[in-house]
Amino acid sequence: MVKYPLGIKNKKKTTIYKNRGMDLESLINKTNQYYLDNDIAVIYKKPTPIKIIKINNKENKITSAVFGCHSTTDYNGVYKGKYLDFEAKTTNSKTSFPIANFQVYQLEHFKKVIKQDGLAFVIFELKEFGEFYLLLFKDLLIYFANNKRDSIPISVIKEKGYKINLMLNPPLDYIKIIASLS
Amino acid sequence: MVKYPLGIKNKKKTTIYKNRGMDLESLINKTNQYYLDNDIAVIYKKPTPIKIIKINNKENKITSAVFGCHSTTDYNGVYKGKYLDFEAKTTNSKTSFPIANFQVYQLEHFKKVIKQDGLAFVIFELKEFGEFYLLLFKDLLIYFANNKRDSIPISVIKEKGYKINLMLNPPLDYIKIIASLS
Repeated sequence: MVKYPLGIKNKKKTTIYKNRGMDLESLINKTNQYYLDNDIAVIYKKPTPIKIIKINNKENKITSAVFGCHSTTDYNGVYKGKYLDFEAKTTNSKTSFPIANFQVYQLEHFKKVIKQDGLAFVIFELKEFGEFYLLLFKDLLIYFANNKRDSIPISVIKEKGYKINLMLNPPLDYIKIIASLS
Repeated sequence: MVKYPLGIKNKKKTTIYKNRGMDLESLINKTNQYYLDNDIAVIYKKPTPIKIIKINNKENKITSAVFGCHSTTDYNGVYKGKYLDFEAKTTNSKTSFPIANFQVYQLEHFKKVIKQDGLAFVIFELKEFGEFYLLLFKDLLIYFANNKRDSIPISVIKEKGYKINLMLNPPLDYIKIIASLS
């Protein structure tokens, strides 16, 4: 008699469980697809730059290439007219996240975005805690300006960042945080 | 006695001439680099998506790949907090530009950007006239809503678009137009 409600419940649990198994990039891509489908925001991951060495023109096939290097961050797009730009980072550490995990060009790009009044941030996955945080890049800069360190303590990410709860769909609703900021 | 001023003049002429020989993508890239270097805007061309078929893991080399397909437009970025998104199109026609020169996904993407209050536009190079125009995508949509045609007359691009004069540096100062719009 209670088969249907139970079925629903189980299904939900399975899906959240599935989300839990996904890596950060997949969670964000799924979230962005949800935003796109529901006209909430338009955010894309940029394609990985690839340096082509040799092309077979006859077949329009690339026969030799190497991975290039982004001069920017991984994700950007628009939410209510506002430019958003972010990077996703996963860490297994319980204590701190080394700034060296950012490429120099990413930090420079973030600074330029902030100068243009764009919204730059990092989505952190703290694997050991099973938690996700959105940290504004300007808060990251303030931390490094005031602390002569080469890493940011996880406690600071938790304190200065905004927690994103893992959900059914969208899995990581970071736009909710962006909306609450403006 | 007048060697130095003449030298300067000649140099300028050569450089503008050089710009004239450049294709639209190179002109825009050079313009974007100028904006970046002078903190005017942060605009990048997205890398071409490439679908990897085979990797040599030992050497971290791609040994087989094909060209993928963008799901968006070519350029995006931020100017004074505002999200910009555009496509560059060159035409040899003196009469009209077929809408089929846009991919369906590009048009859909533009519509989504406009819904999010982003600024979507096209930079046209009219080769036969040696002229460049910035046409807002919303004006393109209005034209197609009012005219049951599958192409846009060049005269409409000239009339509804904003002319961009080819300059020394930045070669195509489209941000000047964006600034005048807001």
